[in-house]
Amino acid sequence: MKIVIVGASGTMGTYLTKSFEKEHEVIKADRNGIDVKVDITSPEAIESMYKSIGDFDALICTAGPTFVGPWKSLNDKTFRNGVEGKMMGQINLVLIGQHYIKPGGSFTLITGGLTHEPQRNFANASAANAAVEGFVRAAAIELGNGIRINAVSPTVIENSPQYFPFFPGEIPVTMKALEYGFRKSVFGANTGQIIKP
Amino acid sequence: MKIVIVGASGTMGTYLTKSFEKEHEVIKADRNGIDVKVDITSPEAIESMYKSIGDFDALICTAGPTFVGPWKSLNDKTFRNGVEGKMMGQINLVLIGQHYIKPGGSFTLITGGLTHEPQRNFANASAANAAVEGFVRAAAIELGNGIRINAVSPTVIENSPQYFPFFPGEIPVTMKALEYGFRKSVFGANTGQIIKP
Repeated sequence: MKIVIVGASGTMGTYLTKSFEKEHEVIKADRNGIDVKVDITSPEAIESMYKSIGDFDALICTAGPTFVGPWKSLNDKTFRNGVEGKMMGQINLVLIGQHYIKPGGSFTLITGGLTHEPQRNFANASAANAAVEGFVRAAAIELGNGIRINAVSPTVIENSPQYFPFFPGEIPVTMKALEYGFRKSVFGANTGQIIKP
Repeated sequence: MKIVIVGASGTMGTYLTKSFEKEHEVIKADRNGIDVKVDITSPEAIESMYKSIGDFDALICTAGPTFVGPWKSLNDKTFRNGVEGKMMGQINLVLIGQHYIKPGGSFTLITGGLTHEPQRNFANASAANAAVEGFVRAAAIELGNGIRINAVSPTVIENSPQYFPFFPGEIPVTMKALEYGFRKSVFGANTGQIIKP
């Protein structure tokens, strides 16, 4: 299978790449470029990425920039970090990528537990996550050619201990569980699902 | 109670205004202006509206423009209708309005059943609704001074029969039930809730 991982140099992307590379052809995409460079806040950059990759079987996105900070610093401008990044960045990966992906292919996006379990400082991520989840459910009934779409929604993850203090009461998701969430989406048959690893 | 209704000339806004005016001071805000003019896609226009109103006890928003149309016409540009309208328009009403509302006041936003029950042609609304719901849950733990926030999430509504064919299987929500959903938010004590009328 030819799998594109967007955000491949991030904490999740690195882990998933290592695991999936053993069995599949993995195209590593990132803001700074590994196999291919992409800034997901730019629809033009997304289109260029797909053109350079050619057809593929699955796209995984683990890139989702949002604004993290005190509520009082949240305004129209800071809120745009999550709107352009985690939300529209991922939505545009699908709206544009549907014209490049193989029939029967799949998109797997990243959201997070903040959708339903808010924490202080993360309102922007709560909104962006929720938007992507609403989009995933809607896109699942619209995408043609047997193309599937799901989101993986972890809480704080094992390999990001710097975030633990901001997620009181959340048991960190192991990297292995996270990987299996993505496996369920990519290699399974579900669509329109929010997978909680 | 001094209640601001944004979208006051719309189908929901007209009904709510008639009902609430019997008992309360209602400030009717709308794109075309009734008591006060506001284009919610502009943070500057929102700030001007609040300045002209002065302090108030509750804000209800029933205005939520989104793009409705075939999946194939959905792209970054058309998607912005819901991002700037129903999503950021309502989020900015809260981020800016928190500095004008009275302590103990409330915000009640409009979302919709499409968050979890998608229908063809409405993916933009599914994403915008979901974003607002994620924001409502997060804002509820961040807003100070006893300020509350909820969303009312109807399916298709009784007084919009032109939409019935697009919502197969959805029993239309009566205007009275919708009104009571808003009453629960404005006059009750809950916060961070998605109220299904």
